[in-house]
Amino acid sequence: MKKIGIVMGSDSDLPVLEKAIVTLEKFGAPFEVHVYSAHRTPVEAKDFAQNARANGFGAIIAAAGKAAHLAGAIAANTTLPVIGVPVKSSTLDGLDALLSTVQMPGGIPVATVAIDGAENAALLALQMLAVADADLAKKLDDARAEAAAKVLEKNKAVEEKYNK
Amino acid sequence: MKKIGIVMGSDSDLPVLEKAIVTLEKFGAPFEVHVYSAHRTPVEAKDFAQNARANGFGAIIAAAGKAAHLAGAIAANTTLPVIGVPVKSSTLDGLDALLSTVQMPGGIPVATVAIDGAENAALLALQMLAVADADLAKKLDDARAEAAAKVLEKNKAVEEKYNK
Amino acid sequence: MKKIGIVMGSDSDLPVLEKAIVTLEKFGAPFEVHVYSAHRTPVEAKDFAQNARANGFGAIIAAAGKAAHLAGAIAANTTLPVIGVPVKSSTLDGLDALLSTVQMPGGIPVATVAIDGAENAALLALQMLAVADADLAKKLDDARAEAAAKVLEKNKAVEEKYNK
Amino acid sequence: MKKIGIVMGSDSDLPVLEKAIVTLEKFGAPFEVHVYSAHRTPVEAKDFAQNARANGFGAIIAAAGKAAHLAGAIAANTTLPVIGVPVKSSTLDGLDALLSTVQMPGGIPVATVAIDGAENAALLALQMLAVADADLAKKLDDARAEAAAKVLEKNKAVEEKYNK
Amino acid sequence: MKKIGIVMGSDSDLPVLEKAIVTLEKFGAPFEVHVYSAHRTPVEAKDFAQNARANGFGAIIAAAGKAAHLAGAIAANTTLPVIGVPVKSSTLDGLDALLSTVQMPGGIPVATVAIDGAENAALLALQMLAVADADLAKKLDDARAEAAAKVLEKNKAVEEKYNK
Amino acid sequence: MKKIGIVMGSDSDLPVLEKAIVTLEKFGAPFEVHVYSAHRTPVEAKDFAQNARANGFGAIIAAAGKAAHLAGAIAANTTLPVIGVPVKSSTLDGLDALLSTVQMPGGIPVATVAIDGAENAALLALQMLAVADADLAKKLDDARAEAAAKVLEKNKAVEEKYNK
Amino acid sequence: MKKIGIVMGSDSDLPVLEKAIVTLEKFGAPFEVHVYSAHRTPVEAKDFAQNARANGFGAIIAAAGKAAHLAGAIAANTTLPVIGVPVKSSTLDGLDALLSTVQMPGGIPVATVAIDGAENAALLALQMLAVADADLAKKLDDARAEAAAKVLEKNKAVEEKYNK
Amino acid sequence: MKKIGIVMGSDSDLPVLEKAIVTLEKFGAPFEVHVYSAHRTPVEAKDFAQNARANGFGAIIAAAGKAAHLAGAIAANTTLPVIGVPVKSSTLDGLDALLSTVQMPGGIPVATVAIDGAENAALLALQMLAVADADLAKKLDDARAEAAAKVLEKNKAVEEKYNK
Repeated sequence: MKKIGIVMGSDSDLPVLEKAIVTLEKFGAPFEVHVYSAHRTPVEAKDFAQNARANGFGAIIAAAGKAAHLAGAIAANTTLPVIGVPVKSSTLDGLDALLSTVQMPGGIPVATVAIDGAENAALLALQMLAVADADLAKKLDDARAEAAAKVLEKNKAVEEKYNK
Repeated sequence: MKKIGIVMGSDSDLPVLEKAIVTLEKFGAPFEVHVYSAHRTPVEAKDFAQNARANGFGAIIAAAGKAAHLAGAIAANTTLPVIGVPVKSSTLDGLDALLSTVQMPGGIPVATVAIDGAENAALLALQMLAVADADLAKKLDDARAEAAAKVLEKNKAVEEKYNK
Repeated sequence: MKKIGIVMGSDSDLPVLEKAIVTLEKFGAPFEVHVYSAHRTPVEAKDFAQNARANGFGAIIAAAGKAAHLAGAIAANTTLPVIGVPVKSSTLDGLDALLSTVQMPGGIPVATVAIDGAENAALLALQMLAVADADLAKKLDDARAEAAAKVLEKNKAVEEKYNK
Repeated sequence: MKKIGIVMGSDSDLPVLEKAIVTLEKFGAPFEVHVYSAHRTPVEAKDFAQNARANGFGAIIAAAGKAAHLAGAIAANTTLPVIGVPVKSSTLDGLDALLSTVQMPGGIPVATVAIDGAENAALLALQMLAVADADLAKKLDDARAEAAAKVLEKNKAVEEKYNK
Repeated sequence: MKKIGIVMGSDSDLPVLEKAIVTLEKFGAPFEVHVYSAHRTPVEAKDFAQNARANGFGAIIAAAGKAAHLAGAIAANTTLPVIGVPVKSSTLDGLDALLSTVQMPGGIPVATVAIDGAENAALLALQMLAVADADLAKKLDDARAEAAAKVLEKNKAVEEKYNK
Repeated sequence: MKKIGIVMGSDSDLPVLEKAIVTLEKFGAPFEVHVYSAHRTPVEAKDFAQNARANGFGAIIAAAGKAAHLAGAIAANTTLPVIGVPVKSSTLDGLDALLSTVQMPGGIPVATVAIDGAENAALLALQMLAVADADLAKKLDDARAEAAAKVLEKNKAVEEKYNK
Repeated sequence: MKKIGIVMGSDSDLPVLEKAIVTLEKFGAPFEVHVYSAHRTPVEAKDFAQNARANGFGAIIAAAGKAAHLAGAIAANTTLPVIGVPVKSSTLDGLDALLSTVQMPGGIPVATVAIDGAENAALLALQMLAVADADLAKKLDDARAEAAAKVLEKNKAVEEKYNK
Repeated sequence: MKKIGIVMGSDSDLPVLEKAIVTLEKFGAPFEVHVYSAHRTPVEAKDFAQNARANGFGAIIAAAGKAAHLAGAIAANTTLPVIGVPVKSSTLDGLDALLSTVQMPGGIPVATVAIDGAENAALLALQMLAVADADLAKKLDDARAEAAAKVLEKNKAVEEKYNK
């Protein structure tokens, strides 16, 4: 199975990305985590991206805040699918990171998820790999069913409390 | 090769999606186009999504404007990767469609591209399929090189005009 | 009297919706509360909506956060009036939920109230039922008079404190 | 059948409201149209609202732009359901009218539809009246089916053009 | 000297308005404080506005949050200058109140100050009265000089700490 | 009667301000128009403001676009009431000018009207002068009545067209 | 005198940048214009930045639209001052480019000017070079005086037309 | 070496500006700190700006919140490069200060950094001075290398924790 890369612009983004890591571990998916900044370590970020396919990666999750260029900088150096996670920082409530990540120019897409949406980034990466992996697809379907069951359980509790 | 599905909420979104169609044709990728509304034809939208994997699809592009629920509604009914294209409408400059598409809750990701970013949606779908398709990956790399060459050509024209 | 349905996308929305429940209880109106997610339990959400009129509902309140599709998904499956409550989540201060709820396309309206405006959602549902229920209309008028009296009481306290 | 009131803050809002009028005519619903400004003719706006229920109205549609107070001013003077249509004006793309209409304080709800969403305002009014009018409910269901058929027709045209 | 009216839509706005009260007291200006809601006590709000000039008021400060109609509702019923204070509430950071207050239609101006800007509202009211009151104008100039002196004192402290 | 000053940051703002000029002429109010930029001619702007009271002005209207500092710069140099008109420019739909004008710090108020709201700026200036001028107050009341009559005329035309 | 570099992400940005070019020509400042995309030609963009100081540049103007990474990408590869010009594109009115350009993380500043503010970008570059170039500083002061004179000329025309 | 001026509109901005001060101290750059308000002490602000070049300054950092005019007011009175730091205040999350600082009209540029971006303001000032100071340029390059090393160290820690 191909690896999923997780790259963040700063280790202060780690609490947000923990949810991605936990999700990938739950699915037993191989992954690597790195701290590369598009601006402070552009060479490492670029090298990681350029070699990612050859190094066995199948998708890359890139998370950053503010003028969040990391996902775009990674995407500029690989044709692997790159998933962008805009991270909320101390001002503007994440809108800056969202627009900096999603509004990419023609030719270089970034698959953007919600602000701080690291769990969905991991699921999206798994969904991409599952296109050619029926077992993984089955696992994703099972996880969906499980999540639905959990909602219905909570529904039951709420119904019991309020509906007489 | 797996098919790419293109679904739009209204045929008024077609001019935006033409760029996705043209891009897929350029790559010789098999695709299908449908007009299914999350709100006006929810059954057809759901049926399409539920059967998409079995019907040979590998990724789905969903485009809608305003309270753009289509991509999310598709994503709720399949674990195939779903790419959302927020479409600009007559008010709010596309911000409503962007937030309605990208801010998905945990569990159901939508890979969102820029407002009206249909070309990138097509490229992203191809990148997803290329994870397990080295020929397609090669084609994507070649297209990148071609696009870079075009920029450099334009650079040359600009340099000749302004730099003496 | 017809029932009022309260549906929320996640039980984390319950604290916001308590105000709707309290309001309906104050008016002695019959209601049911459910947790159905447009994305995680789309079948249950749809079934509830499709059968709501036959099951004796007169209006449905639907609350969700982020890319808040629940009210729209309910509205797509019934011609009962659907009232949308956008719920503020951890980013963007509720703007995402507001736009996702209110900016519905032509044909499928959602009667949207303020962000976290669950009390008003309940009152609006009661107002709808009161169109054909003079007793309820009377109760609503009385509640208005009571609320006005409360404001005037507070006015009196403020006047006494500051105006000499 | 109860009448539906349509009130606009200025006759420059008429082009937006034509869609509401056309929709009500299509359903054969009785209605009245008025131009009352919350600010320039506050007395007439208030009088209309206060007497609306006694005068046979079942719901009121109120449309205004900019600091759109009309729907709120109507709602403050009746417990009939009031539907607010925020109208886009020459600046801020309708965001001002949307927030001024939807963000009502507790106690006085306004059922807000999309910016310039007059068609949906009419449908919402009809849905409210249909709660106690099975014939009207049937007509609304039929109109939904018709709208779905139209989408599927367009779908067919698009499928024939693009899918081979 | 004419009185300055302070009206708030809810007594929860009182902490914001305390700054206005303190400022008016500092200048020894006569004032009255009232709690009148544009929506919950529209009659009292209107009556206050309609009689304000006859009752000896020279300017009215009106503060409200969310869909802040109070200043506009007051302004619709008097040609006295009305000063609007948009109050920040629990969502949207005051933007809703700002736009609802400032974006008034032609004919009915509201003199809007910053979000939660009650001190400036009081100063603005005093400035209006000072147009025909040279003593008050003098006091305002003195207060400005005092405020400037305070800034320069702080400047001195900062300079001493940092500049060697 | 005291004069009203109209200052604009650039003569490109003149089309917006024509409405203020026309309004003042209609009321027969004395006024002066100037083009002073807070940034390009700061000395002239300051001198105008500092001498305005002594030169017989009673209120100043200041209009500017983008980072609209003019009203604030005028207000910093006089305790006359200053009315700010945010002017819409080619980007951001006037939001930049609105926030730059209205969000003044404590001590230096600017009475802000709607984006491009020059007519209301003129009316507000007249309302300020009318506090001590009963004739002008009467004229303002008459103009209000006239505006109301115009709305009601339009109402009549609309009623005749649509209500049978 | 050191050269000023002008880099744009796409030659479609050229109409915006013409104002920068014209301004630099007016001052007789040496400059170079290039089209390098942060995403489509990242190598050329990086090489240009890395060698800019050695190649005799003193400041770099970088203009781009949407998720405007170019200025940041240049800034990441040089410690020369980099001036960012956010370019308005077909959606979001330039807000995306502004936030992507200005909200840079600690360590890598971009000196951002207004949306489409190419003239000011050129002036800012000249001001930077003028810190160590008294002749250029003099020229800038003269240009300011000239601009002020132009405003005052326009002021005179306006005064003659309106003030009697 | 030329001095760097740091001016803030209020000493409440000092906590934000401490990062600029610390950064300049780290580089051993001469600087001065002042509290001058564009609105409360306009004369001092103007005098500082007008004499700054003659007094040995090479760049000026100006920080303010809300309708942040300080940087523009400084820039209007000098052709030295002026760096604007928008400061987040209690409402609107810094958007008001950002737009008031960056959206300057043609002729008077302000080099704007991120909201609360005082560290980058200091670095930008140093980069400007380094254009003509090879030693300082070297120090800036060294600091960059150091920052990169720190990111890579953190990367190593993260890699060791997560990658096996």
